[in-house]
Amino acid sequence: MSNPSRTLFILSDRTGITLEHLVRTLMTQFDDTCCERMVLPFLDTPAKIEAAIREIDAAASEDGAPPVVFSSIVEEALRARLKEAHAQVIDIFDTFLPNLSTAIGKPTSGHVGLSHGMGDPGEYDRRVDAVNFALNFDDGSRLRGLADADLILVGVSRCGKTPTCLYLAMQYAVRAANFPLTEDDFMLGRLPDALRDHRDRLFGLTISPERLHRIREERRPGSEYASLPQCRKEVSAAEDLYRSNAIPHLDSTAVSIEELSIEIMQRVGVERHY
Amino acid sequence: MSNPSRTLFILSDRTGITLEHLVRTLMTQFDDTCCERMVLPFLDTPAKIEAAIREIDAAASEDGAPPVVFSSIVEEALRARLKEAHAQVIDIFDTFLPNLSTAIGKPTSGHVGLSHGMGDPGEYDRRVDAVNFALNFDDGSRLRGLADADLILVGVSRCGKTPTCLYLAMQYAVRAANFPLTEDDFMLGRLPDALRDHRDRLFGLTISPERLHRIREERRPGSEYASLPQCRKEVSAAEDLYRSNAIPHLDSTAVSIEELSIEIMQRVGVERHY
Repeated sequence: MSNPSRTLFILSDRTGITLEHLVRTLMTQFDDTCCERMVLPFLDTPAKIEAAIREIDAAASEDGAPPVVFSSIVEEALRARLKEAHAQVIDIFDTFLPNLSTAIGKPTSGHVGLSHGMGDPGEYDRRVDAVNFALNFDDGSRLRGLADADLILVGVSRCGKTPTCLYLAMQYAVRAANFPLTEDDFMLGRLPDALRDHRDRLFGLTISPERLHRIREERRPGSEYASLPQCRKEVSAAEDLYRSNAIPHLDSTAVSIEELSIEIMQRVGVERHY
Repeated sequence: MSNPSRTLFILSDRTGITLEHLVRTLMTQFDDTCCERMVLPFLDTPAKIEAAIREIDAAASEDGAPPVVFSSIVEEALRARLKEAHAQVIDIFDTFLPNLSTAIGKPTSGHVGLSHGMGDPGEYDRRVDAVNFALNFDDGSRLRGLADADLILVGVSRCGKTPTCLYLAMQYAVRAANFPLTEDDFMLGRLPDALRDHRDRLFGLTISPERLHRIREERRPGSEYASLPQCRKEVSAAEDLYRSNAIPHLDSTAVSIEELSIEIMQRVGVERHY
């Protein structure tokens, strides 16, 4: 074969999450799913490096081609040993640090990476607090506390408010409350009273009626609530409400939670807490 | 000053999340918080690139030193324009793609990066399903469905089960249930009946009694539930239960949610669903 299949290894002394995302981004630039990915996290001792090298060498034999190894391991001795594997090793610190050090005019420290570690214990507490906030305020159950929210997501039932609030909490320690729009609100034809004091922090989610119908069918098959006409009616009423009250909004149908979250923070003007 | 402060810009045509994490990892190798970080996401038109360049040039004047600009923008024309900014531009595709293309023997495609996009719409549904699963099974409220869980986190109240379950769901579409251990379980001195059929999927969380005390004090100040002796008693009983039933367990006190999640999946042997 001219293009044998390859194994991509992702090696880290911590979780490997950062490097895994980087490799996924880079691989979007290649047309096929040419390569199998293997993540080997927590490689922080010589014995674990030896075990990893055995896996890499075995993949080299099996593929008939040297694996590509991305590494974000910090310790010098471990990195040196890794370079003896039968593989093309791409070390992200070797790749970036010399230029970066020159650019900012500082030497490097050699600390093991903390980007997903407990660099700041307060950060963990803020994220957990924000998750608890999102859970407590889920589906409008505790209106009194809306004043403490960094932002308030509004939308019809099952349009994606809860996962988005939880993601904002988990990743950015943003306190996101969640307020469902119901038939009662649409009959009134104006913003629910509970929301009127918080206009500057409101963000609307919308969704395609067809997708909403499919989601609701899984929850309550055959119900009026899940029917396509009902979904069409609610989505249209919610969008009218957003437009008539100048509430910024987005369609969640074809957008990932990550993209939604970043765009919502940007448009509401929320500071990330880390 | 010999080391003027610098601004680090993170430019992306999508969310910038991947690049932000990479830069954070790289910056752990420098001792100070020498540099302010600015993330500019969704730069996908010439007008948005011009606005970004104005921000970069303004930072260059203000800092009296050229900013360092990390970019994961894909489109050629936008990248070319960016290189005219008064900055040191580090383009991650330029940095990695030539080597990677040679290593795997494939040309690059020029697609805008999808690592946090809707590359696979089924993936979004799996993650949202898993989040709903975690919410429904939170705190042992729906025991019948434990059989559907990929893993079951056990531990005393407030030890960190819920945020960890939600993170596993959100990031890896893992269906994680959450089962609180209570005084009743400790009095029995054995594993609760509901868990006995699922031993192979159990994972125990533990926490330092002092930290648990602080967390519970915020929730119910001055209560018996939050008192340090009560926290000591429960944590010690939970750890005894883990040991006598050979349940793998971890102390969440000084570990991030990301690290906990990866280690739990690895030790329970859970397949990530993406």
